Amino acid sequence: MNVMTEASTPAGAGSAVPGAGTKIPAPTYEGDFVLDEHLLLECGRTLAGVTLHYAVYGRLNAARDNAVLVCHALSGSALVGSWWPEVFAPGAVLSLDHDFVICINMLGSCYGSTGPGSVNPETGEPYGADFPLISIGDNVRAQAQLLDSLGIHRLRLVMGGSLGGMQALEWAVRFPDRVERAVIIAVAPLNAMGLALNHLQRQAIQRDPEWAGGNYLPQRPPRKGLALARQIAMLSYKSAPLFDERYGRNPNRNGEDPWGLDDLGGGLIGGRFDIAGYLDHQGERFIDRFDANAYLAILRTMDTWDPLHGQGSAEEVFGRIQARLIFVGISSDWLFPAEAVRQFAHTIRAAGVSADYRHMTSDHGHDAFLAEQAELLRLLQ
Amino acid sequence: MNVMTEASTPAGAGSAVPGAGTKIPAPTYEGDFVLDEHLLLECGRTLAGVTLHYAVYGRLNAARDNAVLVCHALSGSALVGSWWPEVFAPGAVLSLDHDFVICINMLGSCYGSTGPGSVNPETGEPYGADFPLISIGDNVRAQAQLLDSLGIHRLRLVMGGSLGGMQALEWAVRFPDRVERAVIIAVAPLNAMGLALNHLQRQAIQRDPEWAGGNYLPQRPPRKGLALARQIAMLSYKSAPLFDERYGRNPNRNGEDPWGLDDLGGGLIGGRFDIAGYLDHQGERFIDRFDANAYLAILRTMDTWDPLHGQGSAEEVFGRIQARLIFVGISSDWLFPAEAVRQFAHTIRAAGVSADYRHMTSDHGHDAFLAEQAELLRLLQ
Repeated sequence: MNVMTEASTPAGAGSAVPGAGTKIPAPTYEGDFVLDEHLLLECGRTLAGVTLHYAVYGRLNAARDNAVLVCHALSGSALVGSWWPEVFAPGAVLSLDHDFVICINMLGSCYGSTGPGSVNPETGEPYGADFPLISIGDNVRAQAQLLDSLGIHRLRLVMGGSLGGMQALEWAVRFPDRVERAVIIAVAPLNAMGLALNHLQRQAIQRDPEWAGGNYLPQRPPRKGLALARQIAMLSYKSAPLFDERYGRNPNRNGEDPWGLDDLGGGLIGGRFDIAGYLDHQGERFIDRFDANAYLAILRTMDTWDPLHGQGSAEEVFGRIQARLIFVGISSDWLFPAEAVRQFAHTIRAAGVSADYRHMTSDHGHDAFLAEQAELLRLLQ
Repeated sequence: MNVMTEASTPAGAGSAVPGAGTKIPAPTYEGDFVLDEHLLLECGRTLAGVTLHYAVYGRLNAARDNAVLVCHALSGSALVGSWWPEVFAPGAVLSLDHDFVICINMLGSCYGSTGPGSVNPETGEPYGADFPLISIGDNVRAQAQLLDSLGIHRLRLVMGGSLGGMQALEWAVRFPDRVERAVIIAVAPLNAMGLALNHLQRQAIQRDPEWAGGNYLPQRPPRKGLALARQIAMLSYKSAPLFDERYGRNPNRNGEDPWGLDDLGGGLIGGRFDIAGYLDHQGERFIDRFDANAYLAILRTMDTWDPLHGQGSAEEVFGRIQARLIFVGISSDWLFPAEAVRQFAHTIRAAGVSADYRHMTSDHGHDAFLAEQAELLRLLQ
C-alpha cells in the first residue's frame, strides 16, 4: 500500500474528487484490529469478534504525542489520504513529517470493519437485517481500544465532518483526558428535515423487493433502491445555488430532449434534464461501491446520535469536555444547517467548554468540507 | 352535488385540511366537456376525444363578465370549493353571490379529464406509458374551448398556486384579451433543485417493478413507488422550521422507540421518529387517491414549463400580456423559492407588464397557499 494512489477512494458524503495535481498520500499501514472481548453496545446487545479496519499515515514519535484521529462520514473508508488529501498538503492541517494520522472504518460499514455483511460468529451466517444498532459512542469506545493497542493514550487532534464530526465530539465527551483538540465540521444532532431525508433513503432501499427484508444474497443486492437512496442523499449534500449554476434547466448533456417526441421510456418519462442525468450517474456509481445494509446501519447510527439522549443535562455531559473544540458550519448546508451547528457550539460553550464556531461560506452545501478543502483549511489555520 | 360536503377533496400540493368551521361550498354543476376536434399538442402529437372534467360555483350573470377561473396544482381536482374553501369566505377573494367560478381538472390527471388511464380512441386501450407530453399551454388552449362553450369570453380573474399558477400566467400570455387579472402564487419555471426533486419522484415510481413500464393493471398499481414519490414531494412542500416545530427529534407518537431493541424490521431499521411516521402516513393516504401514471404525466408538464422555451424573447412573449398580474412568493418555499418568484415577476414587469410582487411570510413552505389560506387572502386584499 505504500505507494501514491489515485483519488478514487470513497470520501463520505458526496465524494468530491480533489483537484488535479493534489498528491494522494499512501498509508504507512492498513490492516485490521480485532477486539479482545465482546463489545457491549448501548442498545443492550453485544457484538462478538469486532473488527476495525484502519489505516495510518506517517510515524508515531517516541513520545507518542503526535497522534491525530480523522473520522470519516457515511460512505467513507479508512483511507483518509485518498478522500481528504488536501489536509496533508504542505502548510495545511496535517503533516506526514510530524503527525501520526489514524483513520478507522466505522462499524456498520462495508469497508473492512464489522458490518451487516460480516458473519455473526454466534450463527455462522451474515448478520443481514439482524445487525444491531451501533451508536457513535459504541464506535468511539471500540476505537479507543485500537488506540490502546497502538500505545496511544492522547490524541493531539481528532477531526471529522458529518458523521466524522459526531465521532470527533463523542471522543471529547467520552474520553476527556485523551483529546487535546477536536474539529467538528458540519454537524449537530440531525433535525427533523434531516431525519426525513434519511427516512426516505431508508424507504427507497426497503421498498426495493430485492432488499428481501435485509437478507438478500450478495450477488443480488437491492441496486435500484440503493441508487435512489444515494440520489436523495446527493440532494441533501449539495445546494440549490450550486445546482442552478452547474445544471440549471439545461437538457442532459448527452443530447436528450426533455420536450421531445423522441422519448426514453414513453411519453410519461421523456428526455432528462442535465440535473437528472447527473443524479442518475451518481446513483449508478454508488451501487458498485457500497452495500445497502451497511447504508441502513449507518443511517441509523446517524439518526440516533444525540450526546444528551439519556445521558443527562448539557452541563453534565458537555461540562466534562477538556479539549478545545472548533465547530465549522457551512453557509449553504441544509442537511446540517450552519445555524444549527452554531447553536450546538453555543450550547456546549455554555457548559463551560472552549468551543469556537467558524463559518464557512460556500455554495457547495454539506459537501463543501470535501469539495472545497482549501477553503476549509484556510478557516482552520 | 349541490350540497355542503366535507373538506376531503384533493387540494393539489400537500393537501392541507382547512380549519374546522370553514364552510365547503358545493358546486352548482360538475360535469364533462368533450372537445369537438383533436387537440394538437405542442409536442407534435394529437389527442383525440379530449375530455375536460370541471366544476362551477355560483351563477354566470347576464353580461357574462363575472367569470373567474381557478386552476389546481399537481394532485388537485376540479372541486376548488373543497380544497380552497377560504377563498369563498365572506369578504375573501371570491363570492358565490357575485362570481361564477370555474375549475377544470388538468389533462393528465386522474380526476376526470383525459389522462394516462383514459382509453385511447385510436387503439381502444388505455394510453398508459404512451400518454403524450401535455404542456401547460395545451391545457390552457383546451380550457379556452370549454369557456367558449359556456359563452364566456373574458375572465375577470384567473388564479392558482404552483401548477395552477403556471396555468394562470399562461392564460395571460396566450389569451391577452381574455384575462383582466391573474394571481400567480408560488411559481416560476422550476429551478435545478426542483427538477431534481421531480426526477427522484419519477425514479421512485419507475423503479417499482409494479410500474411495469407504465402498463400496470389498474388493480396492481405501483403503490410503493407512488407512496415514496409522495413522501419526497411532501419534503418539498413543507419547510425545515415547520418540521422542527411539529416533529423535532421526537419518537413516533405511536410509541415506537428509535433507540430501542424492540425493533420493527430488524436492527437495521428500528423504531421511527415522528417525522418518519408522518411521512409514511402521507404516502399511504396518497396511494388510495392518485394514479402513478397521472403523477408522472403531470410531473412532466411541470418540469417542461417555461413560457419562453422556443417562444421568443421575454419582451415578445410577456410583452403581449394585458392583464394585471399579482405574484405571490412564500418565504419558506424551497420548491419555488420566493426569490425566484420575485425575479420572475421582475422579468415580466421589465417587458412592460403590470406585475406586482407580494411576499407571504410563513413557515409552511410551498404548501402555505393551502395551509395558510387566511394569510394568503389578507395579502391579496
